[in-house]
Amino acid sequence: MISSKDNNRIKLIKKIQTKAKQRREEKAFILEGFKPVREAVRLGLVSEIFISESANNSIDLPVSDVVEDRLFSDITDTVTSQGILAIVRMPEYDNNRYFEKDNCKLLCLEEVRDPGNVGTMIRTAEAAGFDAILLSPGCADVYQPKVVRSTAGAILRMPCLSCGNTDFVGELNELKGKGFTLYATHLQGAVDFKEPSYDGRVGVLIGNEANGLSDEATSFADVRVKIPMQGEVESLNAAVAASLLMYEVQRR
Amino acid sequence: MISSKDNNRIKLIKKIQTKAKQRREEKAFILEGFKPVREAVRLGLVSEIFISESANNSIDLPVSDVVEDRLFSDITDTVTSQGILAIVRMPEYDNNRYFEKDNCKLLCLEEVRDPGNVGTMIRTAEAAGFDAILLSPGCADVYQPKVVRSTAGAILRMPCLSCGNTDFVGELNELKGKGFTLYATHLQGAVDFKEPSYDGRVGVLIGNEANGLSDEATSFADVRVKIPMQGEVESLNAAVAASLLMYEVQRR
Repeated sequence: MISSKDNNRIKLIKKIQTKAKQRREEKAFILEGFKPVREAVRLGLVSEIFISESANNSIDLPVSDVVEDRLFSDITDTVTSQGILAIVRMPEYDNNRYFEKDNCKLLCLEEVRDPGNVGTMIRTAEAAGFDAILLSPGCADVYQPKVVRSTAGAILRMPCLSCGNTDFVGELNELKGKGFTLYATHLQGAVDFKEPSYDGRVGVLIGNEANGLSDEATSFADVRVKIPMQGEVESLNAAVAASLLMYEVQRR
Repeated sequence: MISSKDNNRIKLIKKIQTKAKQRREEKAFILEGFKPVREAVRLGLVSEIFISESANNSIDLPVSDVVEDRLFSDITDTVTSQGILAIVRMPEYDNNRYFEKDNCKLLCLEEVRDPGNVGTMIRTAEAAGFDAILLSPGCADVYQPKVVRSTAGAILRMPCLSCGNTDFVGELNELKGKGFTLYATHLQGAVDFKEPSYDGRVGVLIGNEANGLSDEATSFADVRVKIPMQGEVESLNAAVAASLLMYEVQRR
């Protein structure tokens, strides 16, 4: 049983929890809770599992070590922990595999900063049958604890693509080259979001919570769509707008 | 200029920010940011406005007092404050006025605990043209700072009704008596959410994030609806589910 905060696994877990740089270097993130950890095991993504002392009763999972309760509460990021935590390998995705997929439906996020929003979009994207999510630099790191938690397990299944050797508009340009039709939710949108047929390869562009989509990214859009709003609301929450649009795409 | 944390207005603001009991007693809440405060003034709901020292340059609003910057950062609940904060009177609503409205569309929340979710639903409810929101005891207090912020101003316009002398199912029973058709999003829903016509008086029931709608509340539903989900997602975020359903109601 581990009882010292100077234990090197404990120090590693803390670093992976709190530092994006460490996550990138280790190509790993921390997953908490029985159900998600069980699924990560099934998918062959788990490196090590740690259990708190009091949670450690006949668990049918390959536990690496038991951690003293007091120390476990120090490494968990949740308020009401189930006492299980795993170091999970980041899945590796090849952008091209998705960019070249028939009828690929892609959610493209530009500087969406709120972890809860990003996590919720990953969760809804899977439910709406989207193929992948492309995230610009400046989006919340999808492997930070709050995003991981908000995805409710979808982080293990929904491909989250980063902009590789280019920037966000570079990737949008690439998508245009592959025949994607790009739809931008825009406050000055001309077309009601229920109108387009959304067939073929589709990219849905969602911008930053405060500033919306940049002019440059908007200029790549083939169609500007608006979600009608009553009352005096000026905009919808970004995750709500993305969800309405993804379910509209799915509807066809 | 106020520079002491022992000033009685400062102490009152802090109490209203942090304590639901104090908000109820004072029948007031704290609103931050220029745009929301300006609108609250327009609606005649503002009691007092406080401005930080550095924000205090020729503001066309009836400012009660200026607060030293260091002290202002102590009373604001936002990370990047605009240096303006108001004590705002809670609007008073008569449930019956909404329960008896023709074609009333009502969002009914049972123990939705996450402040971001509740705030997002208030914002979306206005955009989707809903008439009011009924909140069970156990929901996040709609006048706590994080909810207020998440509504992006909609808290000033969207009637948020509490369960008065009865409990949540008592109110549902009342709604049934007024001819409301109640729709419950439920994982074992029988009808696709795109099927119903949602005409007349409509109540959309949304349950707790972790446990869904209680069996008792579900038993009051006339129709159980499900939002189709692909992949291995087990449920949607509560605010996303509410938003999809409200926009579906609005669509008719």
